[in-house]
Amino acid sequence: MDSNGVDEQMKLVQGAAGYVLEDVPHLSDYILDLPTYPNPLQSNPAYSVVRQYFVDEDDTVPQKIVVHKDSPRGTHFRRAGPRQKVYFKPADVRACIVTCGGLCPGLNTVIREIVCGLHYMYGVTEVLGVNCGFSGFYSKNTVTLTPKDVSDIHKRGGTMLGTSRGGHDTSKIVDNIQDREINQVYIIGGDGTQKGASAIYKEIRRRGLKVAVAGIPKTIDNDIPVIDKSFGFDTAVEEAQRAINAAHVEATSVENGIGLVKLMGRYSGFIAMYATLASRDVDCCLIPESPFYLEGKGGLYEFIAKRLRENGHMVIVVAEGAGQDLVAESIEQQDASGNKLLKDVGLWMSLKIKEHFAKQRKMDITLKYIDPTYMIRAIPANASDNVYSTLLAQSAVHGAMAGYTGFISGLVNGRHTYIPFNRITEKQNKVVITDRMWARMLSSTNQPSFMNPPNGITEATS
Amino acid sequence: MDSNGVDEQMKLVQGAAGYVLEDVPHLSDYILDLPTYPNPLQSNPAYSVVRQYFVDEDDTVPQKIVVHKDSPRGTHFRRAGPRQKVYFKPADVRACIVTCGGLCPGLNTVIREIVCGLHYMYGVTEVLGVNCGFSGFYSKNTVTLTPKDVSDIHKRGGTMLGTSRGGHDTSKIVDNIQDREINQVYIIGGDGTQKGASAIYKEIRRRGLKVAVAGIPKTIDNDIPVIDKSFGFDTAVEEAQRAINAAHVEATSVENGIGLVKLMGRYSGFIAMYATLASRDVDCCLIPESPFYLEGKGGLYEFIAKRLRENGHMVIVVAEGAGQDLVAESIEQQDASGNKLLKDVGLWMSLKIKEHFAKQRKMDITLKYIDPTYMIRAIPANASDNVYSTLLAQSAVHGAMAGYTGFISGLVNGRHTYIPFNRITEKQNKVVITDRMWARMLSSTNQPSFMNPPNGITEATS
Amino acid sequence: MDSNGVDEQMKLVQGAAGYVLEDVPHLSDYILDLPTYPNPLQSNPAYSVVRQYFVDEDDTVPQKIVVHKDSPRGTHFRRAGPRQKVYFKPADVRACIVTCGGLCPGLNTVIREIVCGLHYMYGVTEVLGVNCGFSGFYSKNTVTLTPKDVSDIHKRGGTMLGTSRGGHDTSKIVDNIQDREINQVYIIGGDGTQKGASAIYKEIRRRGLKVAVAGIPKTIDNDIPVIDKSFGFDTAVEEAQRAINAAHVEATSVENGIGLVKLMGRYSGFIAMYATLASRDVDCCLIPESPFYLEGKGGLYEFIAKRLRENGHMVIVVAEGAGQDLVAESIEQQDASGNKLLKDVGLWMSLKIKEHFAKQRKMDITLKYIDPTYMIRAIPANASDNVYSTLLAQSAVHGAMAGYTGFISGLVNGRHTYIPFNRITEKQNKVVITDRMWARMLSSTNQPSFMNPPNGITEATS
Amino acid sequence: MDSNGVDEQMKLVQGAAGYVLEDVPHLSDYILDLPTYPNPLQSNPAYSVVRQYFVDEDDTVPQKIVVHKDSPRGTHFRRAGPRQKVYFKPADVRACIVTCGGLCPGLNTVIREIVCGLHYMYGVTEVLGVNCGFSGFYSKNTVTLTPKDVSDIHKRGGTMLGTSRGGHDTSKIVDNIQDREINQVYIIGGDGTQKGASAIYKEIRRRGLKVAVAGIPKTIDNDIPVIDKSFGFDTAVEEAQRAINAAHVEATSVENGIGLVKLMGRYSGFIAMYATLASRDVDCCLIPESPFYLEGKGGLYEFIAKRLRENGHMVIVVAEGAGQDLVAESIEQQDASGNKLLKDVGLWMSLKIKEHFAKQRKMDITLKYIDPTYMIRAIPANASDNVYSTLLAQSAVHGAMAGYTGFISGLVNGRHTYIPFNRITEKQNKVVITDRMWARMLSSTNQPSFMNPPNGITEATS
Repeated sequence: MDSNGVDEQMKLVQGAAGYVLEDVPHLSDYILDLPTYPNPLQSNPAYSVVRQYFVDEDDTVPQKIVVHKDSPRGTHFRRAGPRQKVYFKPADVRACIVTCGGLCPGLNTVIREIVCGLHYMYGVTEVLGVNCGFSGFYSKNTVTLTPKDVSDIHKRGGTMLGTSRGGHDTSKIVDNIQDREINQVYIIGGDGTQKGASAIYKEIRRRGLKVAVAGIPKTIDNDIPVIDKSFGFDTAVEEAQRAINAAHVEATSVENGIGLVKLMGRYSGFIAMYATLASRDVDCCLIPESPFYLEGKGGLYEFIAKRLRENGHMVIVVAEGAGQDLVAESIEQQDASGNKLLKDVGLWMSLKIKEHFAKQRKMDITLKYIDPTYMIRAIPANASDNVYSTLLAQSAVHGAMAGYTGFISGLVNGRHTYIPFNRITEKQNKVVITDRMWARMLSSTNQPSFMNPPNGITEATS
Repeated sequence: MDSNGVDEQMKLVQGAAGYVLEDVPHLSDYILDLPTYPNPLQSNPAYSVVRQYFVDEDDTVPQKIVVHKDSPRGTHFRRAGPRQKVYFKPADVRACIVTCGGLCPGLNTVIREIVCGLHYMYGVTEVLGVNCGFSGFYSKNTVTLTPKDVSDIHKRGGTMLGTSRGGHDTSKIVDNIQDREINQVYIIGGDGTQKGASAIYKEIRRRGLKVAVAGIPKTIDNDIPVIDKSFGFDTAVEEAQRAINAAHVEATSVENGIGLVKLMGRYSGFIAMYATLASRDVDCCLIPESPFYLEGKGGLYEFIAKRLRENGHMVIVVAEGAGQDLVAESIEQQDASGNKLLKDVGLWMSLKIKEHFAKQRKMDITLKYIDPTYMIRAIPANASDNVYSTLLAQSAVHGAMAGYTGFISGLVNGRHTYIPFNRITEKQNKVVITDRMWARMLSSTNQPSFMNPPNGITEATS
Repeated sequence: MDSNGVDEQMKLVQGAAGYVLEDVPHLSDYILDLPTYPNPLQSNPAYSVVRQYFVDEDDTVPQKIVVHKDSPRGTHFRRAGPRQKVYFKPADVRACIVTCGGLCPGLNTVIREIVCGLHYMYGVTEVLGVNCGFSGFYSKNTVTLTPKDVSDIHKRGGTMLGTSRGGHDTSKIVDNIQDREINQVYIIGGDGTQKGASAIYKEIRRRGLKVAVAGIPKTIDNDIPVIDKSFGFDTAVEEAQRAINAAHVEATSVENGIGLVKLMGRYSGFIAMYATLASRDVDCCLIPESPFYLEGKGGLYEFIAKRLRENGHMVIVVAEGAGQDLVAESIEQQDASGNKLLKDVGLWMSLKIKEHFAKQRKMDITLKYIDPTYMIRAIPANASDNVYSTLLAQSAVHGAMAGYTGFISGLVNGRHTYIPFNRITEKQNKVVITDRMWARMLSSTNQPSFMNPPNGITEATS
Repeated sequence: MDSNGVDEQMKLVQGAAGYVLEDVPHLSDYILDLPTYPNPLQSNPAYSVVRQYFVDEDDTVPQKIVVHKDSPRGTHFRRAGPRQKVYFKPADVRACIVTCGGLCPGLNTVIREIVCGLHYMYGVTEVLGVNCGFSGFYSKNTVTLTPKDVSDIHKRGGTMLGTSRGGHDTSKIVDNIQDREINQVYIIGGDGTQKGASAIYKEIRRRGLKVAVAGIPKTIDNDIPVIDKSFGFDTAVEEAQRAINAAHVEATSVENGIGLVKLMGRYSGFIAMYATLASRDVDCCLIPESPFYLEGKGGLYEFIAKRLRENGHMVIVVAEGAGQDLVAESIEQQDASGNKLLKDVGLWMSLKIKEHFAKQRKMDITLKYIDPTYMIRAIPANASDNVYSTLLAQSAVHGAMAGYTGFISGLVNGRHTYIPFNRITEKQNKVVITDRMWARMLSSTNQPSFMNPPNGITEATS
């Protein structure tokens, strides 16, 4: 809680019938008497025809929408969009953009739209790109970004700004923001990055700076909570189909063929689950949220043998974070350099399955292992993710111009909203294996539940 | 109102704080003492782990979710999903599927999942396909559909059942349903088709038959109201990018090059609008909802000349239903057979623009016209539409098994629901040109608003 | 014949056993005492390992290689590739590149490699781009082209230099070449363009200038004689599959469905023929070289009716130049503006077929017409065409550096050669319908031969 | 030499001017008085228009076509195609098809066309598929193949017959051929498979059976000698671009980013070389034919460091067979199970490079490793390979019907020919690193030649 009794992270507003608004911070929460300006969009010819363009200050969006007649109304978030008044004079804005963490389709679209949105909607001309992630704030020169510079980047994969992991040093970053007279900071990255963004926001607030900090959450794994889905996820699932198709072709072209595909998902199996549901060629989908075991009754080996006897071939999809306990146990006593590779669950499983069936000598299997990870991450966003990324970036721009800070822009139940940092960093979104989507997946693969490991069998939990 | 005082089309349930549930009909509304059975999913191993699998009878989903602290709770729809009890014994079910109207990516996925869902989730083995649309009920043999028959069809475009327009003869169709002892009817089609489905449902109800009628709305144009979007739409927008890219390349490779792309959208410009937003290479997007004119100040010709002078090239996207008044006026006095072709707004515009600039003699333009319509309609669904189509079909199956009838399965604010027929056939979904999405599009193209035609200029309104 | 008794266009060299070399001109044919320089590749580390890098001066490639024991050896062409000696000092070279005519996949790859080849292989730094075709020589500024400028252009369709048709004014062009002190001219374009290139070469020779003129033949239709195939052709056939697939899906999804696809090929049907052979979904392929007729016994209407009765659907592929006589005859008495559109054989056929079956009233057909032309032309080259275009450009560069002029670089029986202009402009390459490839196509479609039109029926010959 | 003084493998025919024909065996070489029949194509309406349809018995194709005025005419092969007379009555033919070895795009197209060609061109109705490679002859049931069964298989990857390695037991296979009264055997497979085919042919000849044995060489690596290229190669190079693009995006999105792509090519680096030439984003291409070393002056580590300092990123392509000596030496003393994985040169190199730069501590690199092997092998053939595979299969069918045996059908200098088994199994096709294609590749990457390893450094030779 700060001195005004307002929590730094979010402001709770209560309403009737159990209504709660988890509101995002605003520059005026800690800077008094900030001047406001009419939104330049009011005189933009493109918007003059649009009656409902500006968002009503009272608009909010509920988090939970499966309701009963008498449900309490529950948690709500502030609706994103342009406001009648802005807290920055366009000529005074000096914005910067940074991308952190792994690649994800749509990164360039977000960068492009922050630049173009600021320029075309608000007349902001000073936008800087920070190269190579957080450490770029203090170790690199910035690059100037104009609409021309970013005009075609959405057609390319990757991030034109470069990215990196780590490198977060809050005070050096905020010093640098202050020294360069930056007053809007757009931070694109995952879980860890948004924790960093939150720390930056708090330090800026502590120093009393008029600097808006906006996050655009990025995670190809879709493991950010609260929001409907993360940008790039659709594209990733689409591209994953190519690998699954290939695995299916390989498996069906030999006797007892097994196609094994590793997909992204360190802590959550969304890509694996959706790719399985979309493809319909998968016989077994293993994700971090659902433990499994290899040996014995009800184990994976038994299921493989059964499916091969029935169909002559099978496809297994494994998320990269699945079965980590099994992997760790299996390689802990060994230290040869090649074993580093075995931390990769896909390589590990391909060795284990081959060894098992070679030892059994009952069935000659042929296993082909495909790891399409970098081929998926590096493609450009598809049309749906391009539109989505564009709107996320526009929302972030509208929010920062309107003086909001310490927020991420996110889609909640199909509506664009502003969400406090703490709501998306406090936990991870995971596949709920007691929920219907997972049941749909199970019903499409008919794989075992791995619920009852025999005594002495270790079950993977990650 | 039928004899029981229950409205045939939907049942209104009131709740506190302005809550209204627009509920769908149920077989028990007009047939007394129907027996129920435990849902077979209860003993399905795949579902035994899933605690929250069955939908609570009270679950509903609000239509409007941008709310204020004190908003009334408004209209709700019944949540889709499996129920604890079903109204059909699986061995007694005899289901049929029919597809009507134009092609749309995802049709085969819906067919596949109705067959597989009935089979694997409920143990239903008798599923018939009706060939070539409504008229197939009485003029064709049916085909038997097993999971094996439909196993790979989601990887192909089109509809394996064939389709047609029209051919709706309610009493012959219901006679046939009765004669063949069909008791679940799945009807996949657009606006007009669902009106036909509604008539079939009413006639079945009038005859007091225990036959569930479920619709799955299909429209590549996304012009079905209430629901978030129609299946196949994402795929269509994705594929439209190819045509826009080609138009852009053609336009930029010559002096004063114009690429003109016609996209689907007879009454609504969603595909054109989203494709424009996704592509970012479009200079002007014309849709049925937004009138425009060619000549004079603020007209299209003037804008073309201006954009060519500035950039040397431009891309125009026109929805097939845009400018129909202009087209009609232009060709009404003529009757040569070639003029039939001019009803196509794309061909008409390409002639008009060429003629205008040839007459003007100020600027040599090169216009390339691309009509990708059938290349878009005929492709298989992308991953996202495959998952979506699968879930729509599963919802329809759960609904029919649970005894609901006279409903369509649709996504509302990201949740699967059952919606009464009349709610989706009473009007069409259109791009609201006074709303923000259109403003975003205008801001991305900077095209004129066509709001103030000079005197004597006809403005197209469709 | 010029004053030295050497034919300007090509030099014939006779050998034993019926050997004839049709050699290309050389700068030294009309300029005496030209100095030579060692090829800079000799000291290039990348080439130092390559023993057989330089082409033997005597290497030639036969045009005809299906031979008998005692065949005469026949016509040969000079083998392309780097020579030990070059006729330009790299620092003195001032090259220019121009692209003319319609778009074709690979244009940018050719431009890229001329620039990069001159730069990296020969150390040439002055390369100019002429914008928008021949007329750009005298009406436009040139652009400087460096390896950096062209680094990524092969991944984009179209031509970065822009193109146009016509605009050929030999003396203004050669004046301009002289004024700008250009001494290597690379001209990329089709039949007509290479005739222009030939005229430029002759005028340069008449003026006695030390300027090498090299052509790279471009024609998406593959209608350049002598050479194996033109660059971009493979890519075009590949992309045409998408349209044929869509036509097939549309046709099979309705009763009596006809999918009609128009493909490029004004004077020759290679794309149509190869696309038909590759796809296997085509029932009838119509090309300019093979006349056909619509009405009566053995006509197209009869075949359509037959195929629909048998299969319920069909796909027709028509090359744009097929049936031009029929089209001309059909529209000559009419002059409404819409009829301009009917010059397009695809639109014309779609109207005629619909009218025929509507008049007959025996069969309700549904015809979907697809014209993918600009979507095909505008895509980037596939890998095979990228490699091919690269090698064509390298050959042209080696040839010009070696002092050859008045030549095109072309593939003959899989070997890169230099061919005199007159050999490729004197006639067009056409599908030989009395040869085996056409028979293979006929055997794959089982279409009629259209050989015996009934009396009074006009047969199309284009 | 067999008892008739005719070499079993090929028949040499001498001609004037150094002409040599390496002819393939014929059934009549060892069976006397075989009856002949008119080719049924003579009465096929599709072929009646084609004057030059039947191949002249004297047609041959030279192997070497870069010639001098006075070169000897050299080795020739028999031209493929239909003959006026056939040695099988269609009703008597009982053909079988088997596919062996790894997957390759186009396998299904070849199968399809053998079935359709025999059926539609020759009226042969009995075609059997042998499942899962050579061992399927004696351990599996055959499947009957009709045109309907194979109608769509060319649109799918893999082989519908299944495949396997090894399993060759000549006498059991020939026993089985005899027992099943098969008289045409089509064998699709690589180097080893064709050696097996050759053994089968010899055993059949030894037994004096009237059974034609035809091979269609298959190798995605393009390592079959004599022929221009193997089917599927173009498709493989095309698909490899996707992996290289991804590697490029990953590398350019981080500081000191390295993208490492492993491509197929156990003994020859054609895919790696052509993919590098097509892509232009590759900085270093390593193939089995060109040894390299890691440490010291002129080594790979030094080159990586240099390229990263200059550009900040790089892409390395390594063929699977490159550097096998280095790999073997590096892992020979170790035996942990993870080390099995290190036999994969891609995994091995990724570990080595990371370890090197970690030890050096001068440069923080980020390496992403992509192995697209199975994603490449499993895709369907592109249009160009579809046409090519079709024609290879047709040639094989024409050859077998004409009584030729012990041959493969192959493209030589762009012409279809029949080649004796021994000519393609006696050695492997390899990239000639002293030839121009490799120099072109080197010049496009500017990579080191690895020609002068410092003392004590082992150079990989595979």
